[in-house]
Amino acid sequence: MIAILVTGGTFDKQYNELTGTLTFRETHVTEMLRLGRCRVDVSVRQLMMIDSLEMTDADRQAIADTCQRSPESRIVITHGTDTMVETAMTLAKTLGPPEGGHDQPKTIVLTGAMVPYAFGSSDGLFNLGSALSFAQALPPGVYIAMNGRAFAWDDVRKNRESGVFEEP
Amino acid sequence: MIAILVTGGTFDKQYNELTGTLTFRETHVTEMLRLGRCRVDVSVRQLMMIDSLEMTDADRQAIADTCQRSPESRIVITHGTDTMVETAMTLAKTLGPPEGGHDQPKTIVLTGAMVPYAFGSSDGLFNLGSALSFAQALPPGVYIAMNGRAFAWDDVRKNRESGVFEEP
Amino acid sequence: MIAILVTGGTFDKQYNELTGTLTFRETHVTEMLRLGRCRVDVSVRQLMMIDSLEMTDADRQAIADTCQRSPESRIVITHGTDTMVETAMTLAKTLGPPEGGHDQPKTIVLTGAMVPYAFGSSDGLFNLGSALSFAQALPPGVYIAMNGRAFAWDDVRKNRESGVFEEP
Amino acid sequence: MIAILVTGGTFDKQYNELTGTLTFRETHVTEMLRLGRCRVDVSVRQLMMIDSLEMTDADRQAIADTCQRSPESRIVITHGTDTMVETAMTLAKTLGPPEGGHDQPKTIVLTGAMVPYAFGSSDGLFNLGSALSFAQALPPGVYIAMNGRAFAWDDVRKNRESGVFEEP
Repeated sequence: MIAILVTGGTFDKQYNELTGTLTFRETHVTEMLRLGRCRVDVSVRQLMMIDSLEMTDADRQAIADTCQRSPESRIVITHGTDTMVETAMTLAKTLGPPEGGHDQPKTIVLTGAMVPYAFGSSDGLFNLGSALSFAQALPPGVYIAMNGRAFAWDDVRKNRESGVFEEP
Repeated sequence: MIAILVTGGTFDKQYNELTGTLTFRETHVTEMLRLGRCRVDVSVRQLMMIDSLEMTDADRQAIADTCQRSPESRIVITHGTDTMVETAMTLAKTLGPPEGGHDQPKTIVLTGAMVPYAFGSSDGLFNLGSALSFAQALPPGVYIAMNGRAFAWDDVRKNRESGVFEEP
Repeated sequence: MIAILVTGGTFDKQYNELTGTLTFRETHVTEMLRLGRCRVDVSVRQLMMIDSLEMTDADRQAIADTCQRSPESRIVITHGTDTMVETAMTLAKTLGPPEGGHDQPKTIVLTGAMVPYAFGSSDGLFNLGSALSFAQALPPGVYIAMNGRAFAWDDVRKNRESGVFEEP
Repeated sequence: MIAILVTGGTFDKQYNELTGTLTFRETHVTEMLRLGRCRVDVSVRQLMMIDSLEMTDADRQAIADTCQRSPESRIVITHGTDTMVETAMTLAKTLGPPEGGHDQPKTIVLTGAMVPYAFGSSDGLFNLGSALSFAQALPPGVYIAMNGRAFAWDDVRKNRESGVFEEP
């Protein structure tokens, strides 16, 4: 069983045709799993639905606490790309090194999208397939799955000019 | 570096509007990698472009030989779903158990799609993201990545009634 | 009020992922009208759901009879492109010249698609918008609306090599 | 020959994945005509590429002057929906009543979209098919083609709560 924790981000933005702006309504994750004919046993929980630029330290801590308390040892988090690295750091510090802690060691994979899923040209479905697979195959730790790769939480940055995740 | 070997399958079928039939032209894999903003170092090689129901033993052996000869130790193969399990078996027998062989042990992941990528409702992009990730994270062996899961080559069948891959 | 009579055709074909073939299930016309934010007062009636190559003379006559009996004076018919011209001829002969008949003169517009609506690259939505508009603006008569144009029923053929409707 | 004058609007907005905002780059009209397999003889000219809320009186006058000077007697204008009615009024006043003027009487149809074409759920392709058809079939005058209908320039408003064009 894999927990999928939804926090919002570009992934889930959609076009509000009355205001002409990008907003959030409901998560697209369930629809995306259906499209991917996904048969992994998952539990989708929506924690928040916000732009990651607006995520506070308290929000990040709430995500980390949820990961710590969740019965699942494998977790995927959908998240805005702008502060994904910061949240990964909070997760790593809260859940501690898997070998030393008294908690069950967990594999946590954050992912997101550069383009909203509702757009034809979104990378979201590719990233969700990638994140779910890394969550199943990687040893305990906190990772970011973007651009088809998995990065350790302390060895990654978002290059804001190219929109690509890379080693620092 | 990951090799992506293209063999055809539903993945790459497209609609021929003059004949009203589903046919092959060129692979969509490169376009899909672009859509997924994939930054994994890949080499895409088209071996054949056929429906897997028409794949012969000689075709399967040619795929296995290409895997054996390829310099990459991690390989993704796009393949029709109908005989994906048969090709996985040929691959496992040709490349041998990774521990015993004199060849470099390889991680080979077969994937495909239930619906052509050119259709809006395709699982192809999800599966490609999944297969590329499993190919990076799994130990040497031959696997099938479908429905968000990775199956060992000798522990999987396609359920033809549900269209889902599962343990036998 | 415009009647939309559904007969099938490429328009409504969809991919059966278990058999790997193109088949019919339900019409997409209602979903397409929703996507087009259409506010024309329409009545959608499904007469048959077949490939137009399999349409018999009796089928064509049934369509013509439905047009004659329908209370609406403006009608759009979705139809396979291969025999659209034949059905248009049956309609024109059955409903007669608008000036001479004792029936209410009607504007009937046949349309279809070269690529199923369910494919990303379909011309269906464009054609439906076109056909509904011609049905409102053209004088009584039988027309084919394809490729952004409206053709009189007796001045059109489908060019099978280019897939385009044109004057003979 | 029909002139298609591009002014921007939601129609042509696209997602900038580096800034996370909706912006303009190039018009999608040519790609849409290709998708619709359109064989109407058209001349696409990009006059401006702006949100219609930012359109000035000078911009509207420039559009009207272009219509007046253009050799084509049938014109489609793609335009943001928010001030489409205002531009239609400027066009009607500049080009005058078709019967009284010394200019060639013209059929001018404004259209747009509630959702950008680049989104899967756009009404743009439906509206473009509709506008091109009304432009061919309606007598001289200035019209707005939205929601599958054609409205005379002085008998229409955009209902901002429902996002639908309707008689006042």
